[in-house]
Amino acid sequence: MEISALQKERANYQPKLPKALQGAVKVKEGAPTQSVDNQEDIKKLFPNTYGMPLVEFEPADSANNAKMNVGVILSGGQAPGGHNVISGLFDEIKKLNPENKLYGFLMGPGGLVDHNYIEITEENLQAYRNTGGFDMIGSGRTKLEKEDQFEKGLEIIKKLNIKAIVIIGGDDSNTNACILAEYYAAKNYGIQVIGCPKTIDGDLKNDQIETSFGFDTATKTYSELIGNIERDCNSARKYWHFVKLMGRSASHIALECALQTQPNICLISEEIQAKDQTLNDIVEYIADIVAYRAAEGNNFGVVLIPEGLIEFIPAIGRLIQELNDLLAAHGTDYMNLDKDAQRKYILEHLSTENKATFETLPEGVARQLSLDRDPHGNVQVSLIETEKLISEMVATKLDQWKKEGKYKGKFAAQHHFFGYEGRCAAPSNFDADYCYALGSSAAQLIANGKTGYMAIVKNTTAGTDQWKAGGVPITMMMNMERRNGEMKPVIRKALVELDGAPFKSFSTQREKWAKETCYVYPGPIQYWGPSSVCDQTTKTLELEQQK
Amino acid sequence: MEISALQKERANYQPKLPKALQGAVKVKEGAPTQSVDNQEDIKKLFPNTYGMPLVEFEPADSANNAKMNVGVILSGGQAPGGHNVISGLFDEIKKLNPENKLYGFLMGPGGLVDHNYIEITEENLQAYRNTGGFDMIGSGRTKLEKEDQFEKGLEIIKKLNIKAIVIIGGDDSNTNACILAEYYAAKNYGIQVIGCPKTIDGDLKNDQIETSFGFDTATKTYSELIGNIERDCNSARKYWHFVKLMGRSASHIALECALQTQPNICLISEEIQAKDQTLNDIVEYIADIVAYRAAEGNNFGVVLIPEGLIEFIPAIGRLIQELNDLLAAHGTDYMNLDKDAQRKYILEHLSTENKATFETLPEGVARQLSLDRDPHGNVQVSLIETEKLISEMVATKLDQWKKEGKYKGKFAAQHHFFGYEGRCAAPSNFDADYCYALGSSAAQLIANGKTGYMAIVKNTTAGTDQWKAGGVPITMMMNMERRNGEMKPVIRKALVELDGAPFKSFSTQREKWAKETCYVYPGPIQYWGPSSVCDQTTKTLELEQQK
Repeated sequence: MEISALQKERANYQPKLPKALQGAVKVKEGAPTQSVDNQEDIKKLFPNTYGMPLVEFEPADSANNAKMNVGVILSGGQAPGGHNVISGLFDEIKKLNPENKLYGFLMGPGGLVDHNYIEITEENLQAYRNTGGFDMIGSGRTKLEKEDQFEKGLEIIKKLNIKAIVIIGGDDSNTNACILAEYYAAKNYGIQVIGCPKTIDGDLKNDQIETSFGFDTATKTYSELIGNIERDCNSARKYWHFVKLMGRSASHIALECALQTQPNICLISEEIQAKDQTLNDIVEYIADIVAYRAAEGNNFGVVLIPEGLIEFIPAIGRLIQELNDLLAAHGTDYMNLDKDAQRKYILEHLSTENKATFETLPEGVARQLSLDRDPHGNVQVSLIETEKLISEMVATKLDQWKKEGKYKGKFAAQHHFFGYEGRCAAPSNFDADYCYALGSSAAQLIANGKTGYMAIVKNTTAGTDQWKAGGVPITMMMNMERRNGEMKPVIRKALVELDGAPFKSFSTQREKWAKETCYVYPGPIQYWGPSSVCDQTTKTLELEQQK
Repeated sequence: MEISALQKERANYQPKLPKALQGAVKVKEGAPTQSVDNQEDIKKLFPNTYGMPLVEFEPADSANNAKMNVGVILSGGQAPGGHNVISGLFDEIKKLNPENKLYGFLMGPGGLVDHNYIEITEENLQAYRNTGGFDMIGSGRTKLEKEDQFEKGLEIIKKLNIKAIVIIGGDDSNTNACILAEYYAAKNYGIQVIGCPKTIDGDLKNDQIETSFGFDTATKTYSELIGNIERDCNSARKYWHFVKLMGRSASHIALECALQTQPNICLISEEIQAKDQTLNDIVEYIADIVAYRAAEGNNFGVVLIPEGLIEFIPAIGRLIQELNDLLAAHGTDYMNLDKDAQRKYILEHLSTENKATFETLPEGVARQLSLDRDPHGNVQVSLIETEKLISEMVATKLDQWKKEGKYKGKFAAQHHFFGYEGRCAAPSNFDADYCYALGSSAAQLIANGKTGYMAIVKNTTAGTDQWKAGGVPITMMMNMERRNGEMKPVIRKALVELDGAPFKSFSTQREKWAKETCYVYPGPIQYWGPSSVCDQTTKTLELEQQK
């Protein structure tokens, strides 16, 4: 297999561990914990895994030589560093006892249920150390939530004499990890389940989890590209670049990239929702800045747009809701109409407010909302090219202002969507170390008999030596939320906090960034060289930890 | 002005120079030269700048302390390293004589004509050393080709006591540099003109120019992204990614990225043209590979598509030609028809062969070819989203094959276009050094009285110490070509040579890459660290120089 020069050199990188994990390890337990909300409900649902203490690792005098086999699963979307969690886990269980075995279940949680797995050995792991991607064992989106899945998984777990399963995933996958932990605990099967916080979206964080892994590398990769585009923009001085950034719902990625690159505009979905802004409000906000810059002779700029935006615009949310109901009720007769008649039909049936919203949308988008639906009959919001929608509407608004004499200038747009470019980048030094430490922590949680915990590493803005590793009971991060009409226990998703330090830093600077040109060009992730370049964390983490 | 950590550290990088340019410099002249073709015509058009010798620099015992002011112009699209050409030029003329001044004309050749300029000083240059972009003085696409422009430029040249103009540009800009040099020489104005080979497209190369600057950095940046996408593709195993790559007409960028990343498919326009392939041939070629991989359980892959593809498909070229003529002749009555009638009108008027081609096109593309036209009445080929066009046609073909039982599998596509992401990246070590040496060479060509030359640096696959710097008479690279109906002297554009080493290396490996999964993940450009990572040249250059 041919590999790149970078991969060859990077394979030799030895990730750094927190002091507590460098030798023999013991556990320090804190006081019992509570869930963040709905304590009674959560306690009732998780009688065996509720209320456990926070755990922190400390150096010990003698090693726990636990004999244990472990299974590992990658769940959901890719994030840089997954292979390093596996490496950390592998190295730590081998350090505990060289006879310990690590099994990787293939293509996500489905691999556990369907008994597809490989043994991970030093030999096959070597090529994946410090690499991006989840290709070593693959990932998948099967949800582990049903008893027959748990029982099916148990068969292979017993066959391989596995003591614990490590599930590397986002908020949903970790919620399910806890349900699995609770189930195995309730049944007294003696099988432990440990989670690891993965997602480039950055929305799996709270008082215990400083950041989810992959966020650092992905946002640095996107920021490299945004910086390059800003430099092009500032050199050619003739385009407005509209850049949509991946991130299912929260705007952490867009915010972090804005802090790194200082674009002229960055939309934050959470703010738009909080202010109950309409699509037209957003369009006017952008058009105002375009007009201001044009008056200064600057017919160029960069706009960052979070992928989840559309669903956060309250008026669009209400429209989508009514459309879903309307077309579910009248689906068949509607489907048989031609395009123009369909539009007329919708306009006749919508409430006044939603009709007004519908009429402001460009025809293509209106059509997308009223026609293309997923198998459950819902609008496929992710298919809407928000970056083009918004730039088209800005162009229309500017044309109108031009006729009214309120704007003189040239407006030409370019569009970009960055997502797949960053999810599988090779992990930055930060993610390489952080993930390795998470894997190592997961192994120690297992060795110390824990289940229903997530591996955590804190104090991550300090040097790796001073990082604090341990575990948090997953129930501690849960509350009850409505999902598909039912109240469910879930890990609370972290949205951008409008009174948090990262957003505040952004909001106090954005007017200057809009009017002047304050672009910053972060450049590509560096693995060697000055520490100021290679070892910096995200701006988000830096600002949050300053609090 | 806030700058990134990388910029801070990178500002201190001192680009390396070839031995001959490290101290005092003298000139070694070769034999008289000839143009690559049409020698009589070129000689007649360039009586004062034809036949000059190749020039190579050598270490000298004593310095030429030439007193000279110089003007510099960035022409055309951005390419990484432009600021380093300016730095090399600046440092070299200051080394010759600290009183020498460098002026930068603003926003391209228009700055010379309109007398917009700044003086470049150590102070304002410092922030731009080793950075990407052309934002220090801007660039533009004004063509310098008319006498009144030359005379207008002369006014400011005289006012600033400028001895020579350095034009940093692609093949067209360097052709115009030579016309300007010839004009000033014919008029005995005593003003010299020197060119520098810039373009990420890589199509300005020949026996004298090993590579144009920016190609190295841009292709490495695109390859980083393609590698990341390949890793995502190989992890998720559910998408075919169609990646269009910038590069006006030649396919050098796509080819280089393919050599770096080993995708499943890479289209090379020059090959498609040589084989007279139709769009359907291309679609079947891709669909065959998709079907083969699907049969192996691999419903994923990566396809690279050069931006210029459409114009190189002979059948489409002929169709576009006939449409241009047809709609020029019948524009008005056609414009007044509705969409369906327009399509009918076109089908009625096209020749049988072109009608057949038109009918195979998806409706949106057919419409784009028959409606949206530039101010000269020509199809705006660059607006066609080739990556989507091809993936849609592949999907249609696979649907058909599925019905015929020839294909079983799932086909879901993602689309990307990489261009602006790479044109303004900070230059790689190679481009940083190469550009600096080009700027330094340009200064020495001026100091040694040369005009109508391009600065060149050769032996670039060896260490910088062994690089050979000098100059080539621009007329040596010229031939006569038809442009807008007239025969014009132009620098011959380098297309991908189907019997060249880079294409051969690709074509002998592509079947393996198509069937197996041989992805290589180059990762981001590194500025520090192992030389194998930081100082490698492009695969194209490596293969070409092995010859």
